[in-house]
Amino acid sequence: MNKKLMELKEILAEVADLVGAQAVLSWDQQTYMPAGGSDSRGEQLSTLARITHDKFTSPRIGELLDGLHRTASLQDPNSDDARLIKVTSREYAKQTKISSEWVAEYAQATAMAQDAWVAARTESNFAKFQPHLEKVVDLKRKYAEFFAPYDHVYDPLLDDYEPGLKTKEVKTIFSRLREEQVKLIKEISLKPQVDDSFIMKDYGESKQWDFGVEVITRFGYDWQNGRQDKAAHPFTTTFGYGDIRITTRFLHNNGVSSLFSSMHEAGHGMYEQGISKKLRRSVLFTGASMAIHESQSRMFENLVGRSLEFWTFFYPRYQALMAEHLADVPLDKFYKGINKVEPSLIRVEADEATYNLHIMLRLELEIALMEGKLAVKDLPDAWNTKMKDYLGITPPNDAKGVLQDIHWSSGYIGYFPTYALGNLVSAQLWEKILEDIPALPSNIRSGDFSELLAWLREKVHQHGAKFDPQEMVQKITGSKITPEPYLRYLKKKYTDIYNL
Amino acid sequence: MNKKLMELKEILAEVADLVGAQAVLSWDQQTYMPAGGSDSRGEQLSTLARITHDKFTSPRIGELLDGLHRTASLQDPNSDDARLIKVTSREYAKQTKISSEWVAEYAQATAMAQDAWVAARTESNFAKFQPHLEKVVDLKRKYAEFFAPYDHVYDPLLDDYEPGLKTKEVKTIFSRLREEQVKLIKEISLKPQVDDSFIMKDYGESKQWDFGVEVITRFGYDWQNGRQDKAAHPFTTTFGYGDIRITTRFLHNNGVSSLFSSMHEAGHGMYEQGISKKLRRSVLFTGASMAIHESQSRMFENLVGRSLEFWTFFYPRYQALMAEHLADVPLDKFYKGINKVEPSLIRVEADEATYNLHIMLRLELEIALMEGKLAVKDLPDAWNTKMKDYLGITPPNDAKGVLQDIHWSSGYIGYFPTYALGNLVSAQLWEKILEDIPALPSNIRSGDFSELLAWLREKVHQHGAKFDPQEMVQKITGSKITPEPYLRYLKKKYTDIYNL
Repeated sequence: MNKKLMELKEILAEVADLVGAQAVLSWDQQTYMPAGGSDSRGEQLSTLARITHDKFTSPRIGELLDGLHRTASLQDPNSDDARLIKVTSREYAKQTKISSEWVAEYAQATAMAQDAWVAARTESNFAKFQPHLEKVVDLKRKYAEFFAPYDHVYDPLLDDYEPGLKTKEVKTIFSRLREEQVKLIKEISLKPQVDDSFIMKDYGESKQWDFGVEVITRFGYDWQNGRQDKAAHPFTTTFGYGDIRITTRFLHNNGVSSLFSSMHEAGHGMYEQGISKKLRRSVLFTGASMAIHESQSRMFENLVGRSLEFWTFFYPRYQALMAEHLADVPLDKFYKGINKVEPSLIRVEADEATYNLHIMLRLELEIALMEGKLAVKDLPDAWNTKMKDYLGITPPNDAKGVLQDIHWSSGYIGYFPTYALGNLVSAQLWEKILEDIPALPSNIRSGDFSELLAWLREKVHQHGAKFDPQEMVQKITGSKITPEPYLRYLKKKYTDIYNL
Repeated sequence: MNKKLMELKEILAEVADLVGAQAVLSWDQQTYMPAGGSDSRGEQLSTLARITHDKFTSPRIGELLDGLHRTASLQDPNSDDARLIKVTSREYAKQTKISSEWVAEYAQATAMAQDAWVAARTESNFAKFQPHLEKVVDLKRKYAEFFAPYDHVYDPLLDDYEPGLKTKEVKTIFSRLREEQVKLIKEISLKPQVDDSFIMKDYGESKQWDFGVEVITRFGYDWQNGRQDKAAHPFTTTFGYGDIRITTRFLHNNGVSSLFSSMHEAGHGMYEQGISKKLRRSVLFTGASMAIHESQSRMFENLVGRSLEFWTFFYPRYQALMAEHLADVPLDKFYKGINKVEPSLIRVEADEATYNLHIMLRLELEIALMEGKLAVKDLPDAWNTKMKDYLGITPPNDAKGVLQDIHWSSGYIGYFPTYALGNLVSAQLWEKILEDIPALPSNIRSGDFSELLAWLREKVHQHGAKFDPQEMVQKITGSKITPEPYLRYLKKKYTDIYNL
């Protein structure tokens, strides 16, 4: 192997080890860490983040990249090595603009903000979280300034999750979506409502856990190379090749919430478990973008997990297991129940028709915070006002409103739009999958997900971050990210359920 | 604060953060990591170990230490700062002798050896562990060579756990111990044996877990700053100030094993939880030595946990909880049962009279391995021969013989003697505690451990690693480590139980 390339790969491997170590520390912080460990953990994450940043931004990497750009053996632009150089160069250019002081401050601020958020949400006390969020927003504004000039202050944030995408483009896609989804919700609201009262119960943790495990095992989530734990907010995390973990949580007033959460995270987890081993310990050992990642999680949660085919197979088992609640509920009624469209408070519990409106609300608030048009202290009011405008409901408290998501406490401003984009990509891929695997619906009706997973492994998973998201979607489906397949999917689904 | 001292403390704080991060990764490896994560974890630990070593051995630390040795404000030799300089200087002198290549190789080799050991022990297949142990022994020999010339090749290893102690001294202490303990065991063997058949049962995990938690909570183990998990081999680990964790395990043929294990680890855990906050993120935020550490664990496990006073309080509760097994067993019989003296295979299950013989066996094998007089492949035979010589029994398989301890897989050669030394120190401290707190036996009979913990906090815990072990024992008890108090303790205890 080219000596320079070998040296670069060695440094990147160390960076990957440090990133993996941080993932372990963050996972533990959100699953098992005792309260007293909070300060020490913040310091450790801060130190690791700074060392990682220093290592990845060392001038030596710049020199190596410069030399390698002129290397003949890297002329195939789709080879692993050429893509490694490309993505590393992009990240290096980005990271070298950020100061290591900012990185350390950000790591510590978000570690502390996460703990504060847990406490604030538990007590529904926004004041406890406010100073931490102010700090995070302030740091994120400073972050954007590292990338000035920009078209929009939100662009540099968005770019971290969706390389190359601009705020303007997202606004365009969202405005088309909003128009159509609002129309659809209106139509549905004029029809007789479906009953989901039998779901809004406490089904008990252990049965839900076991059933969730059974489902995602059938999907193909690999327990040899992963595990599931409980966390306040479900997430997926990659410690390194062979160790990709998911978490779930249980709600006492919703008997299927943890199941859909497990399916969602398993979608993320299988993505990372499917990345080629050849890409391990490098910047390519991750998803292409968050939208692509969400396309995988939302596909398993919704296109698969909320489909009639899926429940045709699983419902008899589930009904028997949850007989106390479901003995008198036939499949059709259950299917309609889990697909009930109703404006609701909690994003992760929202149905597919209203979900994207939760995202639009967050995007607008994030943009206002970043533009300085909204102060953090006014955020709860702004949240509640928008909830009323968009969904016609007002949260009874901040725990069910502005405090519901972990993202801001983790510094994930710019992340939310990727959920909606992920929905769009999931439907776009799904139309292609149905062309390639006509038997898929009948496979799912018999609990067989192997062809689906094999397709995703081949087209999406194995490539890791080799391709940009738009490039990948174009390559697979023939067009860039577009809302039309998702809108077709929603219309067809709800026409059947609500007799539109 | 002195500018140089401040800079030194900042670097040491980062080193402490990196050490804490490694502790989290190792803990996870032994508690929750899926099998597939093994290679990645080895690489991560290796990278972190190398970065830590490089940081701690940077020439800048040498310069700062040189400058600080001449600083007037550090003239009080017992001040935190003076001791910090002293201990850092000692460790720096040591670490700068070791190559960072060795450190990385050692971290990776031991990470892989630990996994191999788990598999080998499960299958009782020494061959699976052999190549890994050969690598570890080879690395440990190379390690000793960094410190040549030495009096004995084992000295540099011992020094890591017991600063300043020499192989020769340990041999002297052990030969006195061996003589007296063998005599005691002989005397006991001539008396009618006590019955412990009611203990050698499966008491069930969850009741044992709950009772263990109740006991160590009363001891003063702080759950706000710690937690307990299951692991193949129980251990205590410090992630940093405020997060000090213990683990336990359950045996299906012994109803009290996990309880004594929890008490043992809680002894370690309370030591680290009691270290002054002022010493956090420095080399002083740890125990004075492993022997001092073991004095704390063995004190709570044995001097407290196997005492008649302890069970006078706890037995009614325990008897009721385990009624299925203990309903007909009076306190006196139970007390004798948990103190039965009988040559046995497993060190951690051994009674107090035979325990030190298990240590002597290991010490002799370790010395022979290091001297090159014993090959790793011949270790199982050597183990079994010595077991026969010392304890008159032969392990039926290697899982119950040479594969029983995790230590060698972790590279802890030189560690075992500290267990026996810890026993000695525990009894030495105990004689002093009884002088200072005459009411202690009656406190324990009423389940009150607060005065005991307060005494340990003041005399031992708070100081962290400020004082050398011999210095600390001398300061507290008026003499260096000596076997006489422990021998007096054993004789009194077994005279009562066996009517010697």
